[in-house]
Amino acid sequence: MTADDRPLVILQPAPQRPERIFRPAVRAELDRLFRVVDLSDDQDPASFDRALPEAFAVIGQPDLPTERLAEATALRAICNVEGNFFGNVDYPTAFARGIHVLGCGPAYAQAVAEHALGLALDVARGISREDRAFRSGTERYVADGNADAVLLRGARVGLIGYGNLGRALRPLLEAFAVDLQVHDPWLPDRALAEVGLVAAPLPELLRRSQFVFVLATVTSDSEHLLGADQLAALPDGTRLILVSRAAVVDYDALWSELDAGRILAGVDVWPEEPVPADDPYRRLEGLVFSGHRAGGIPQAFERIGEMVVDDLRQIAAGLPPVRMQVAARELVGRYRNRPVG
Amino acid sequence: MTADDRPLVILQPAPQRPERIFRPAVRAELDRLFRVVDLSDDQDPASFDRALPEAFAVIGQPDLPTERLAEATALRAICNVEGNFFGNVDYPTAFARGIHVLGCGPAYAQAVAEHALGLALDVARGISREDRAFRSGTERYVADGNADAVLLRGARVGLIGYGNLGRALRPLLEAFAVDLQVHDPWLPDRALAEVGLVAAPLPELLRRSQFVFVLATVTSDSEHLLGADQLAALPDGTRLILVSRAAVVDYDALWSELDAGRILAGVDVWPEEPVPADDPYRRLEGLVFSGHRAGGIPQAFERIGEMVVDDLRQIAAGLPPVRMQVAARELVGRYRNRPVG
Amino acid sequence: MTADDRPLVILQPAPQRPERIFRPAVRAELDRLFRVVDLSDDQDPASFDRALPEAFAVIGQPDLPTERLAEATALRAICNVEGNFFGNVDYPTAFARGIHVLGCGPAYAQAVAEHALGLALDVARGISREDRAFRSGTERYVADGNADAVLLRGARVGLIGYGNLGRALRPLLEAFAVDLQVHDPWLPDRALAEVGLVAAPLPELLRRSQFVFVLATVTSDSEHLLGADQLAALPDGTRLILVSRAAVVDYDALWSELDAGRILAGVDVWPEEPVPADDPYRRLEGLVFSGHRAGGIPQAFERIGEMVVDDLRQIAAGLPPVRMQVAARELVGRYRNRPVG
Amino acid sequence: MTADDRPLVILQPAPQRPERIFRPAVRAELDRLFRVVDLSDDQDPASFDRALPEAFAVIGQPDLPTERLAEATALRAICNVEGNFFGNVDYPTAFARGIHVLGCGPAYAQAVAEHALGLALDVARGISREDRAFRSGTERYVADGNADAVLLRGARVGLIGYGNLGRALRPLLEAFAVDLQVHDPWLPDRALAEVGLVAAPLPELLRRSQFVFVLATVTSDSEHLLGADQLAALPDGTRLILVSRAAVVDYDALWSELDAGRILAGVDVWPEEPVPADDPYRRLEGLVFSGHRAGGIPQAFERIGEMVVDDLRQIAAGLPPVRMQVAARELVGRYRNRPVG
Repeated sequence: MTADDRPLVILQPAPQRPERIFRPAVRAELDRLFRVVDLSDDQDPASFDRALPEAFAVIGQPDLPTERLAEATALRAICNVEGNFFGNVDYPTAFARGIHVLGCGPAYAQAVAEHALGLALDVARGISREDRAFRSGTERYVADGNADAVLLRGARVGLIGYGNLGRALRPLLEAFAVDLQVHDPWLPDRALAEVGLVAAPLPELLRRSQFVFVLATVTSDSEHLLGADQLAALPDGTRLILVSRAAVVDYDALWSELDAGRILAGVDVWPEEPVPADDPYRRLEGLVFSGHRAGGIPQAFERIGEMVVDDLRQIAAGLPPVRMQVAARELVGRYRNRPVG
Repeated sequence: MTADDRPLVILQPAPQRPERIFRPAVRAELDRLFRVVDLSDDQDPASFDRALPEAFAVIGQPDLPTERLAEATALRAICNVEGNFFGNVDYPTAFARGIHVLGCGPAYAQAVAEHALGLALDVARGISREDRAFRSGTERYVADGNADAVLLRGARVGLIGYGNLGRALRPLLEAFAVDLQVHDPWLPDRALAEVGLVAAPLPELLRRSQFVFVLATVTSDSEHLLGADQLAALPDGTRLILVSRAAVVDYDALWSELDAGRILAGVDVWPEEPVPADDPYRRLEGLVFSGHRAGGIPQAFERIGEMVVDDLRQIAAGLPPVRMQVAARELVGRYRNRPVG
Repeated sequence: MTADDRPLVILQPAPQRPERIFRPAVRAELDRLFRVVDLSDDQDPASFDRALPEAFAVIGQPDLPTERLAEATALRAICNVEGNFFGNVDYPTAFARGIHVLGCGPAYAQAVAEHALGLALDVARGISREDRAFRSGTERYVADGNADAVLLRGARVGLIGYGNLGRALRPLLEAFAVDLQVHDPWLPDRALAEVGLVAAPLPELLRRSQFVFVLATVTSDSEHLLGADQLAALPDGTRLILVSRAAVVDYDALWSELDAGRILAGVDVWPEEPVPADDPYRRLEGLVFSGHRAGGIPQAFERIGEMVVDDLRQIAAGLPPVRMQVAARELVGRYRNRPVG
Repeated sequence: MTADDRPLVILQPAPQRPERIFRPAVRAELDRLFRVVDLSDDQDPASFDRALPEAFAVIGQPDLPTERLAEATALRAICNVEGNFFGNVDYPTAFARGIHVLGCGPAYAQAVAEHALGLALDVARGISREDRAFRSGTERYVADGNADAVLLRGARVGLIGYGNLGRALRPLLEAFAVDLQVHDPWLPDRALAEVGLVAAPLPELLRRSQFVFVLATVTSDSEHLLGADQLAALPDGTRLILVSRAAVVDYDALWSELDAGRILAGVDVWPEEPVPADDPYRRLEGLVFSGHRAGGIPQAFERIGEMVVDDLRQIAAGLPPVRMQVAARELVGRYRNRPVG
């Protein structure tokens, strides 16, 4: 009888479901390479604690405070599959121990970028507005419904935030030969110039952009980054696309601008989700509504599973992870995201 | 007293309006370079006939039968600003005389390509569907509304027709790293290969595509190119985007497929426009409705004026036109397009 | 016994060789679709004249004066396979008759563009210079030989002429994120802007460019377009790449600048070919010499044959040619190119 | 009197020179943000040890064994400006302490990629070979010297190694629409697929490639990765471009293949540098010689200084470094590079 020397992996992905992130073939890879202790349906802390001392990796976002990490002497990787880093892990200890703290944010980037572009083209051309009109028998033909329709090609476009989302969106926008500016306080101007981008201070970006994509994550610094003054600075007719986090924008100010018809918007994230049933803004015309749907599509979930398996195999082979996002010690404590409901 | 030796240009753009195609600066250029006989509001044939003998160019699509061309001894260019070539010109004589017969089709290509991509992203992600749900208080959040949402990135995409529209759409699609096939019976396979495209027979293209863009113009050969059999060949869940001409598709067959929920579609052109008020299909769910709006936006119209002025200046300088589409003698008689109402 | 109703094609490609332009498979296509009268080795005018009345197309550049065209009553296409249009054809008659006058210039464009970029990278980095040093045992290592080495990335680049060559070179340069200007007096500024290019007057382009590519053809207007004054305007250290026609540049002035070490150059075309054996400039250091080799490579020749067969099939099917270059009536008489020896 | 609270930075870049990596403006930035102890010309260990306890960062590659790190209680970053990581640092302690270990490899990537492409185009077209012929009066014109000239466009290309160099080279190659395969044992196939690349096992890549770029670094695993068998597997006429590290290739085997004229090569790195004066291979015809010049150009050096200043400012602001390469704990001990002389 030989011992099974495959590294042990604890799988506790809640609120993710394992069958959603692992296609059968990818799950088979995981099971072939690792001894998987599957706690997807077992939230009992005792089960987790029993497996922890031998665990090579944890897939999921369970609490990992100092005491638990002390037990996890074999731990090499923590693979968050939810998309945000929360305060339930003793990150300093993990970093000091050389445990890889990995996130799955990049898995959603392409889905969000495509959705954001879809919203932008919708508000540029009135696609959902005219579809509604058609359904009520009031559609307009040819140029009659196009008075405010604009091209994206050649437009002045501003990106607020240039992380995973911005990097995924950029090539889609460049196909339209847009005149692009980027604002990201976490990146030196020369880092953007190095990759061919123009950095701009936020006020300048807002003042000149015909399309603005809000792609920033929430930190203590970025709450209401777009308040009434900033929104008022946008040119008339600007299309604002909001797909990252609601806290970045002052929604009362946004509703005022939309209600006045001064700007148009596509909005995927909301201060309160679900939006109250009786919210009077549900009938605003200059807005395309989307229910936090930009990232969470089946292909994005499946990509998480592939990233996890690829990186666990890398680490088990003595190589660095290359697919998941490596948590930065400087940033992991700054995020103010709440779990997605 | 000196004679005005600027070439004479007759401007009779109806149904286009001159102020829509010529921005003031461009109109000023036209007026500076040419003696413009503006018949925008004068449809009296006598006015036209009076100016014709001295005309260097005609901007518009008036009748130019053999007899009229015989009078137009100075004519060097006919600049169609409507988008389609009709049978009201003696094309053989124009070609034999070396008169440039020019169309403004390319002016619309970018607008149509952007609209087509907007429709594709809408049906890929359910953007207008979920916007409607939001307005009726039945929206779904996060993954709940995304069961059938798909990425465009990496998708198998087929283009039917590869003219102005296809060339404008291609770079937008390539930003998504799609797996592209093209069917265009007017182009040799090697002409497509030369520019890096894969030519495919129509049946193969239909059988494998997850997104199909119908970009073909109507000729005697292309009517109902997509009939019941062709539509039945599409894989389940295919997104069909129809932005060129309605006659290319059998709409009864299309409604059947949509009604069955087997495919999804974004449709901008209709067999009858306006669509009858009581058309029962107005409430189909798997369809994004658009009222022949893909091309006719203000920036497209203004581009026509720029193209006309640029090419007339080229011709007056003894250079070939480079911006408008040169009518092919082989094709000018084949189109079966009707004027846009 | 049935008549052979394949259209008749006269093949007299001299100085081209048929086996060089037609790969066996492509020649087989030609022979299957057409009755080919192969006069590749028969320059007897009588042979040509015998075939002419029935000829659907001529492949080659034989004399076609007015009288001969009068005999060629079935002629639909003249396919020049040499690269330049000469004065030995009655072009006005051909155009009036609707005979397609086609050139093979585009077949060479990719080869020239790649060679031009190779020359540019050579003079940017001293590749052939240091290879020579290595062979003489005087090579330098690491930074020692790199004092004047520059990146192409981000450089200010000027293109003089934007026809086939410019269009082929552009994407290669754009991969380096260059800051591009274009000067082409045959194109309206807006035509360049339309495709995302910046038009510049020649003096401005010369004054600011770190790399200049001379891609212009020769006409009565472009002889010595780059004379002593223009070359003197180039910034110190400019890399000049000359791959189109020698007559565009004043070589005495060019040698002076090179001899002074003020600029560097890659030169593929020469006022006299072969260059005299005792030309003292053969040992200039700041120059990469190339013997009119940029275009004439096997793959370019084979592309000519493919273009010819594709377009003849198009025309025979009642479709316009799409691969060869359609001669512009305005330009065909302007070229001043001499046959390549 | 107020204390200077700018963080202290030790600058000891040898063998780099500070004036080569810091343009005056960038040096001024460094001096404004930090108290710089400039030991560029002071290799006395005592000087270094005196500054170390207060040092926020070290710019250079001095020895940092365990004992020294123990003294460096304020140390937050080690910025290597030489290009390779050596064994003179106690990396485990640095990682455990959360000290950023940063390398400047990316600074060279664009320069190497451009040089590699220049070598590839040279061997594709015989640019330096024909330049030499010209200088000796034996040049050939037009097609005569082009019998073996090939296009890069559409060629089958293999990249061995896909790190900084591969990522910089890729867009340059894609502009040629090459058919690309990548072999990198440190990357999962899906990581390459994710960014649109095709992973291939080394034997397959070698067997099918018309151009091979060797971009791999040296580790214990990659020595003589390309031995006699691998080189023999290359198709006749393959162009091999070697710009990373000599140890990856068996040069005796390479010379045999080149001497036989079976393949062509551009070589920038050598088993012994300088190459012995009497090396008989110095006159090989199918080879372009380059003296380890691909990376070390002025613009690359200046980029190092910018990266250092940008990342030190990031770290001082509590943000992660974003421009230099973060050393991977798994790889930092694997490299077998020797210092560049």
